[in-house]
Amino acid sequence: MANIAKKVSWSGRGDDRGERTPLLNGDEEVKNNRQSLDYDNSENQLFLEEERRMSHMGFRCLEIRRWVICGLIGFLTGLIACMIDIAVEKLAGYKYFAVKQNIEKYTELGGLSISLILWAVLNSAFVMFGAIAVAFVEPIAAGSGIPQIKCFLNGVKIPRVVRLKTLVIKVFGVICSVAGGLAVGKEGPMIHSGAVMAAGVSQGRSTSLKKDFKIFEYFRRDTEKRDFVSAGAAAGVSAAFGAPVGGVLFSLEEGASFWNQLLTWRIFFASMVSTFTLNFFLSIYHGKPGELSSPGLINFGRFDSDSVQYNLYEIPLFIIMGALGEGNVTLHWLLRFSHAVLCLRYIHRPCLQVMEAMLVAAVTATVSFAMIYFSNDCQPLGQDKAEEYPLQLFCADGEYNSMATAFFNTPERSVRSLFHNPPGTYNPVTLGVFTLAYFFLAVWTYGLTVSAGVFIPSLLIGAAWGRLFGILLCIVLLTCAAAQLGGIVRMTLSLTVIMIEATGNVTYGFPIMLVLMTAKIVGDYFIEGLYDIHIKLQSVPFLHWDAPPTSHWLTAREVMSSPVTCFNRVEKVGRIVDVLSNTSTIHNGFPVVAHTSENDEPGKICGLILRSQLIVLLKHKVFVERASSRLSQRKLQLKDFRDAYPRFPPIQSIHVSQDERECMMDLTEFMNPTPYTVPQETSLPRVFKLFRALGLRHLVVVDNENRVVGLVTRKDLARYHVGKDGLEELHLAQT
Amino acid sequence: MANIAKKVSWSGRGDDRGERTPLLNGDEEVKNNRQSLDYDNSENQLFLEEERRMSHMGFRCLEIRRWVICGLIGFLTGLIACMIDIAVEKLAGYKYFAVKQNIEKYTELGGLSISLILWAVLNSAFVMFGAIAVAFVEPIAAGSGIPQIKCFLNGVKIPRVVRLKTLVIKVFGVICSVAGGLAVGKEGPMIHSGAVMAAGVSQGRSTSLKKDFKIFEYFRRDTEKRDFVSAGAAAGVSAAFGAPVGGVLFSLEEGASFWNQLLTWRIFFASMVSTFTLNFFLSIYHGKPGELSSPGLINFGRFDSDSVQYNLYEIPLFIIMGALGEGNVTLHWLLRFSHAVLCLRYIHRPCLQVMEAMLVAAVTATVSFAMIYFSNDCQPLGQDKAEEYPLQLFCADGEYNSMATAFFNTPERSVRSLFHNPPGTYNPVTLGVFTLAYFFLAVWTYGLTVSAGVFIPSLLIGAAWGRLFGILLCIVLLTCAAAQLGGIVRMTLSLTVIMIEATGNVTYGFPIMLVLMTAKIVGDYFIEGLYDIHIKLQSVPFLHWDAPPTSHWLTAREVMSSPVTCFNRVEKVGRIVDVLSNTSTIHNGFPVVAHTSENDEPGKICGLILRSQLIVLLKHKVFVERASSRLSQRKLQLKDFRDAYPRFPPIQSIHVSQDERECMMDLTEFMNPTPYTVPQETSLPRVFKLFRALGLRHLVVVDNENRVVGLVTRKDLARYHVGKDGLEELHLAQT
Repeated sequence: MANIAKKVSWSGRGDDRGERTPLLNGDEEVKNNRQSLDYDNSENQLFLEEERRMSHMGFRCLEIRRWVICGLIGFLTGLIACMIDIAVEKLAGYKYFAVKQNIEKYTELGGLSISLILWAVLNSAFVMFGAIAVAFVEPIAAGSGIPQIKCFLNGVKIPRVVRLKTLVIKVFGVICSVAGGLAVGKEGPMIHSGAVMAAGVSQGRSTSLKKDFKIFEYFRRDTEKRDFVSAGAAAGVSAAFGAPVGGVLFSLEEGASFWNQLLTWRIFFASMVSTFTLNFFLSIYHGKPGELSSPGLINFGRFDSDSVQYNLYEIPLFIIMGALGEGNVTLHWLLRFSHAVLCLRYIHRPCLQVMEAMLVAAVTATVSFAMIYFSNDCQPLGQDKAEEYPLQLFCADGEYNSMATAFFNTPERSVRSLFHNPPGTYNPVTLGVFTLAYFFLAVWTYGLTVSAGVFIPSLLIGAAWGRLFGILLCIVLLTCAAAQLGGIVRMTLSLTVIMIEATGNVTYGFPIMLVLMTAKIVGDYFIEGLYDIHIKLQSVPFLHWDAPPTSHWLTAREVMSSPVTCFNRVEKVGRIVDVLSNTSTIHNGFPVVAHTSENDEPGKICGLILRSQLIVLLKHKVFVERASSRLSQRKLQLKDFRDAYPRFPPIQSIHVSQDERECMMDLTEFMNPTPYTVPQETSLPRVFKLFRALGLRHLVVVDNENRVVGLVTRKDLARYHVGKDGLEELHLAQT
Repeated sequence: MANIAKKVSWSGRGDDRGERTPLLNGDEEVKNNRQSLDYDNSENQLFLEEERRMSHMGFRCLEIRRWVICGLIGFLTGLIACMIDIAVEKLAGYKYFAVKQNIEKYTELGGLSISLILWAVLNSAFVMFGAIAVAFVEPIAAGSGIPQIKCFLNGVKIPRVVRLKTLVIKVFGVICSVAGGLAVGKEGPMIHSGAVMAAGVSQGRSTSLKKDFKIFEYFRRDTEKRDFVSAGAAAGVSAAFGAPVGGVLFSLEEGASFWNQLLTWRIFFASMVSTFTLNFFLSIYHGKPGELSSPGLINFGRFDSDSVQYNLYEIPLFIIMGALGEGNVTLHWLLRFSHAVLCLRYIHRPCLQVMEAMLVAAVTATVSFAMIYFSNDCQPLGQDKAEEYPLQLFCADGEYNSMATAFFNTPERSVRSLFHNPPGTYNPVTLGVFTLAYFFLAVWTYGLTVSAGVFIPSLLIGAAWGRLFGILLCIVLLTCAAAQLGGIVRMTLSLTVIMIEATGNVTYGFPIMLVLMTAKIVGDYFIEGLYDIHIKLQSVPFLHWDAPPTSHWLTAREVMSSPVTCFNRVEKVGRIVDVLSNTSTIHNGFPVVAHTSENDEPGKICGLILRSQLIVLLKHKVFVERASSRLSQRKLQLKDFRDAYPRFPPIQSIHVSQDERECMMDLTEFMNPTPYTVPQETSLPRVFKLFRALGLRHLVVVDNENRVVGLVTRKDLARYHVGKDGLEELHLAQT
C-alpha cells in the first residue's frame, strides 16, 4: 500500500522538469522548463580517456585559457557597464535639459502644466520602449536579475536566463527605465549582464547568433560554466559599485558552495579587470584619460574624514538604526510582496504590462513635479551644482529648489546629494514627503515588467530617512542607507565590503557591519529578504545552506523518489525512447543497473546516465547492431556532447524507426560509472551536505546489496523547510 | 604478488599516526603524534537519537550559543591582543628610554661602547626569557603559528597546538621577542592566540587547568571545533590588523573548504567583536575612552588622499614591482629555506636554541647600533617625534639621526615612519644598508625558537626597498611593501583586504591587488610560499584545493590502503585490544563489516568506527555479556564520548583482563552506519573532491557487492603532487 502511495505521489510530483513544451509561453513556460544544473562531472569513459590523454602542459594551457576567459569577461562586463552609464547619462541629460528649459520658460509665462505633460510624456516614452522590449521580446529580462543568477549559481536552470538576447534586452531595458525616471537603479541588471557575458564568452559561441568560434570547447559543461558565471556576476558587482572585493564576496555569498582558492582568484581577476576597464573608458569619456582613481559607477563621493569619528555611545544608535531600518522595511515588504503576487498572477498580457509601466512612469513624473511645485524649500546655489540640473522655479535668483535636487535627477545623483549636501539643505517636511512618495513609487515600480535594480532605490529611501531622522552626520546617513538596503537584500559580508569600497573609506566599516547584522537578524525574524521572496514566489527548488535543523529523523528512504526508472547496461532503444517520451514523469537522470529483472526486484547499480546524454546517443544512432555492421563509422566523442550543450534537442525531434526500436544501445562507455550513492539509512542532513557540497543533481540511494532503491533529486530536498512549528513539507508548484 | 607488495608498503607507510609515545620528545614527538581531524560527523545511533530528541527550540538555542561563543572568542582575542600590545609598548618604552639616556650620557663623555653593551644585554635578556619559555616549556609555540593553524583547519591535528599552555607561552614569548628588538612582528602569534582561545572557549573546559565548566558540551567534536577555530583565527587577524573583513577572508582562504553562509556570519561577528574590544581598551589606555575610530594594532597611519592619485602609465610599474618584489623574495627564500632546514635538523637541544636566540638579539642590537653610529644622516626634528625615541647622537641640536628612527624603534613604528616621513628623510645609502642588514637579520631570526611573526618584517623590508627604489610616493611604498609580503605569504584576496583595511583607504585597492597577483604568479613559478614550505618541511599530509591535474588515470584502487583491518558488528574484545595495541600499524578508523570470514574474503560494509570510540567503549567495558547480566548499569551516552574528547587515553592505559578478552562487544550502536563509500573505479580527482568538500578522514572503498576492499586516508591522497615532470609520488616521512 505504502508503495502505491509513493508511486502516485512520485508521478504527480515528477522529477526535474523536462524540455521545452512549445505550447506554453511567457512565465508559464519558464516555470515549466526549470531544470537542474549538473555541477558534478559525469566522469564517463570518454571523459576519462580525454583527461588521461592530456599532458601536464595541456592542463596548464587550460588553466591559462581560464584566466584569459576571466579577463575577457571582466573586460566586456566593464565595457557594458560603461555603455549603460554613458547612455543613461546622455539620455537623462537630454531629458532634464528639455524639461528644464520648458519649466524655465513657463515659470515666467505661467502654464507649468505643459511642462508637466512634457515631462510625463518623455518619461513614458522612454519607459515604453524599455517595457515593450521586455514584455514582447524577452520577459526574463524583467527585474534586477539577481534572483535568477542566485538560482543559476545554486543549480537551478531557468531557461534563457543567460542568453545573448536576454543581455541585449536587459541593457536596452535598463537604459530606458533609468532614463525614464523610474525609481530604479542600474546595478542589479549590470550583475545579470556580467553573468550572461560570462556564460557566452566561456562557451566560445553564441547559439542566438548561430556562430561557433570553435574555441573553449572544453568548457562546455555545467561545472565550468557555473564557475565562469560566478566570475561574471562578480565582475558585474565590481563594475556597478567599483567594488572588486565586494564582487568576489557577492559571488561566494550567493553562489558558491564549494570554496576553491584557484577559482576565487580567477573571480577576483575578472572583478579587477572589470573595474579597471570601466574606469579607463569613463576617464576617457570624461576627458581625463588614464586617471584611474575614481571608483565604480556608484560613487558616493568623498566622505570628509573629519566627520567620520564615532564614539562608543553611538554604537547602540547604530544597532537601533539597523533594527528600525528593518522595521521600516517589514512594512515595505508586505506591500511589495502583495504587489509582486498580484503582478505575477494577474497582469500577464504584454500590452497591459507595457501600459502599466508607462502609467507608473507618468505618475512618477507627476508626483515629482507636484513635490517640486509645492515645495518652497529654496537654497542658495553653490558652485558645484552645475551638472545636477538645478531648478530655480519660484526661488529667488541665485537660489534653487532643493526638492528638485532629489526628484529632478537620476537616483544615483540623488543619493549623492543626500549624502553630501551640507546640513540644512533640506527641511524635514520636504524630506518626509519625499521619503514617503518615493517609497510608494519604488514599491509600485518593483513589480513592473521593466529591467530594474533595487539597490539604488533602497539606498535612496534609507538616506532620505536618515536625513529625516534629524541627525545630520554623514556617517549616520550612510548607516541608515545601509540598514535599508541590508533589510532588503539581506547580505552582510559582501554588502559591507561593497559599501566600504563604494564610499572609499574603511573607517565606516564597523558601523556598517553592525547595522547590517542587526538589520539581518531583525529582518529574518519577520520575513525573508527580497530575493528569497522572489525565489519562493516562483517556487524554485532552491537549496539553502544547511538542511533544516530538526530533520535528523528523516532518512534517505523517506526523502527519495521511488521506484526509479532504471536502464540496463545494454538497453533496447525502444524502451529508452518510450521512457524519454513519457511526458507524465519527466526524469533527467537514470541509474544504469546490471540486470533489471521483469519482476520488481531492483538491479545492482553500475552507473548513471543523463537524459541529455541519451538524446545525443539516439541522435547519432549509437546502436550495438550498427557498430558491428559499420566499422567505418567514427566513434562518438566527447565533442559531440559538447556541441549539443546546452540546448539538447527534445526527444520528439529525434526520429527513431520501428526497426531501430529493436536495436540495442550499450551505455557502458557513456554513463558515469561511479555515481555517488548513499545507503537508505542516511539521514537527511547527511544527504543534504553531500548534495550541496558537491553540487549534485541526482543521488542514487542503494540498499546493502548495492541495488538501486531510489533517487534523490534537488526537488526532494527543497521540499523540506522550517516553518513556525518546526519542519514543514513544502508543496512545490505542480504547474 | 602485488598484494604482498601492497601489504608491505601499507604496514610501512602506516595510517594516521597513533597516540603519544612518551619516549620521544620535542619536535620528534610532535611529528609522531600528527593525526587527522574528523570533520565528518559520526552519525551513529546515539547521535541520531540525541538529534531527534532535540526540539526546534533546542536547535535555536544551540545556534544562539554558537553566536555567544563567537562573541566570547572575539572579546577574549581582542583582550589578548590589547595585552600584548600594551606590554610590548611598555617594555620597549623602558628599554629605549634606558638606552637613550645612556647614549645621550655617553655621547658627550665618549664611551658609546657601554651603551652598545647595555642595549645588547637588554635585548638578550628579553629574548632569553622568551626563548627559555618556548624551548623548555612548549616548543610548539615557536614561530608565527600560522602554518600550524593552516594545518589544523586543513584537518591535520598537530598535538598541543590549541592548548592553553601554548597560548600562555606564545603570548609571553612574543612580548619578549618584540620587546627584545628582534626583527619580528606580533601579528602571526596573535592569529595563533585567537585560534587557541577559540578551541578553549568553545569546549567549555580546560584540560590543562583540569576545569570543566559543563557548558558547551554539544560542541565537543572536531567539526564544531574547527568552525570555532576558524572564527578565532579571523578574530586574531582582525585584532592584529584592524581588518575584520580581511580576517574572515583569511580564515576562508586558508581554512574552510565548504563555504557556509551561517558560519561565515559567525566568523564575521567574532572578527567585529575582536576589533571593537581591542579599540575600546586601547582607547581607554590612551586616555581617550570611547573613541573607536582608530583601527587595529597595525595602523599604517592616515595616508594623505591627495597623493593617492595614480595613472594608467603606473599600472605596468605596479606589475613590475610585484614581479621584482617576488624576485627579491626568491633569494630571500632560498636563504630562509636552508636556514630552516638547518634549524630543524641540527639545533635540537633547548639550551643551544636559547643561546642562539640570545646571540641573534645581541647581534641585532650591535648591527643596529653600528648603523646608527656610522650614519651621518641628520634630519630636523619635527613636532610629532615625541614618542618615537629620536636620537640626537652626533647631530646638531634640533636635529635627529634618521637611521635611528628605523632601527631604534619597534618594527611597527619603523614601517609607519617609512611610509609617512616626508621625501628626503632618508638618504639612499642609509636605506640601502638598512634594507640589507634588516633582511639578513630577518632571515636569521626566522628559524629561531621564539614566538615571532613574519608580516611586519616583510612589510618593513618591502617599504625600505620601496624607498630605496627612489620613488617617494607613498602609494609606491605601500605597493612595494605589499609585494614583499605577498611574495612571502602568497595570499591574494585576504591580504588585499587586510592591506586596504589597515591603510584605511580603499583607493589603494587596485594597485595592491595587481601587485599581489603578480607577486603570487611570479612567485609560484619559482618556489612555494613561506607557510607552504614550512608545512612541507614537516611533511604534513596537507591536502591542497584540487587533486593534481594529471591524476585522472589514478583510481581509488591504486590510491587506497589495502588490506584493511575490519571489525565485525559484534566483535571479540580480545581482537579489538590486539588491533588497537599493534604499534606497527596504527590505524584510526575501522570499517565494520557484516561477516568477516577467516579466509581473505572481505565482508560487506555496514559501518565505520573510530579508534577513539573503541577506546571509550573499552574503558566503560561495554560488553554484551555485562549488559545482560547487569541491567542496572547505565547505558553509554554521547556524553561519555564528549567527556573523553579530545584527549582519549592510549590503549595501554586501559586494563582488560583475560576474562574480559573473551567477551564480545556490540558496535552497532556506536559505529557510523552510513559512512561515505566509493567504488574502486572512482578516479582520484573524484575521491579528492569528496574528501576535501566533506572534510573526511577515512573513505571506504567497496566493490560492487558492497564489500570493503580498501580505505583511503588523508595520507594516501597527500602523497601525490605535481612535480616538474608531472605527477610525482611523495614519500611522506616515516617517523
